[in-house]
Amino acid sequence: MHETHEPTSSRATAYAPTDRTVPTRSANRASYDKELVHAILDEGYVCHLGFVRDGAPVVLPTLYGRIGECLYVHGSTGSRPLRMTGEADPGLAVCLTVTHVDGLVLARSAFHHSINYRSVVVHGIAHEVDDPEEKRIALDALVDHVLPGRSQDSRPANKKELAATAVIRLDLDEVSAKVRTGGITDEPEDLALPHWAGVVPVRAEYGAPVPDPGLAPGTGLPDYLAVL
Amino acid sequence: MHETHEPTSSRATAYAPTDRTVPTRSANRASYDKELVHAILDEGYVCHLGFVRDGAPVVLPTLYGRIGECLYVHGSTGSRPLRMTGEADPGLAVCLTVTHVDGLVLARSAFHHSINYRSVVVHGIAHEVDDPEEKRIALDALVDHVLPGRSQDSRPANKKELAATAVIRLDLDEVSAKVRTGGITDEPEDLALPHWAGVVPVRAEYGAPVPDPGLAPGTGLPDYLAVL
Repeated sequence: MHETHEPTSSRATAYAPTDRTVPTRSANRASYDKELVHAILDEGYVCHLGFVRDGAPVVLPTLYGRIGECLYVHGSTGSRPLRMTGEADPGLAVCLTVTHVDGLVLARSAFHHSINYRSVVVHGIAHEVDDPEEKRIALDALVDHVLPGRSQDSRPANKKELAATAVIRLDLDEVSAKVRTGGITDEPEDLALPHWAGVVPVRAEYGAPVPDPGLAPGTGLPDYLAVL
Repeated sequence: MHETHEPTSSRATAYAPTDRTVPTRSANRASYDKELVHAILDEGYVCHLGFVRDGAPVVLPTLYGRIGECLYVHGSTGSRPLRMTGEADPGLAVCLTVTHVDGLVLARSAFHHSINYRSVVVHGIAHEVDDPEEKRIALDALVDHVLPGRSQDSRPANKKELAATAVIRLDLDEVSAKVRTGGITDEPEDLALPHWAGVVPVRAEYGAPVPDPGLAPGTGLPDYLAVL
């Protein structure tokens, strides 16, 4: 396992780099700035959660939410990663990654093709959340990550639903962001080649909301959906 | 490690399920159909690649390409996962996951909130590609995954660039897709609640291509970009 390190102070403006958060490549694209990390995390709601099962890696897409320096992931109490946190809860070593694709970078040379992106990689030990109040707040955060304001406009989980839902927490401590922005790179001798070169912006687009046919009479489109 | 299993026949129309490709939850959303798996893979170009380093999971976003029943991932010869395939190349245990988000599923109850999505999870041992011809074809596939047709409209990698690029291959053998589509689920007693419920479609949108200021005179927008 990795060497221990001093936990990042809650008042620090950046996460302390560690052996595994310093990239071997494109180190100039790496950042440990908390504000940047938070912004990348808050723009998304689907992460890819990695853990080790029987010695082999497993990567599953799942929803997440952030509250301060904690990330929360939920699932059925019967699901694999959550079951593996176990009764005694020694925690589960995870790597949680969030990626936004911002553009296709088309250089004249195949070699210099790239992607503009922003990603965050979090390493750590996830623990199951036992405290009912923390669990409730975490589930609200998960819903609000998908659509800010939505948790206040839905029926909260009842006791039975809370019992069927496991929530795990991963502290933001060993964290890095990686960002590529801007235009293409090409070799000077390729600049006169007749290939189109440039950037194609990419973003997530929301279509018109499709209401459930059985909406209660008078239920209009809420503001948080109208602004999408 | 996991039990061995019969490799999926190349003529089979579905991948053989294994212990780790049968989900513990929502098994009705799982599929092993090759056509579906290929379609999900071919719609994307960024995967999340998981591997184990010093006993801990690592999940990194990276580009991929598919040729038949092989996936290819590339990187610098100095990058971590590729270095770990090593000289003797015993292979690297990986989990490669591709996810498309298709919609936000907003139920009246917080508990029944969900996401419409299509994902593919591939387990296996990745090996470095030594054959120069396979490497060349794999790199074309990577570029064409980002934009079909693009590899033919860019300067191919030269010897030096090929030498600096490592490519690893992962055979499609232990593979599953998972798909959620359709509308919301709500408890009968929640149907009269005054919360908006329904689905918000999500898709990747491409913006207007931004040409490099130094395009060679007369270089127009290629057809494969005009149709985005």
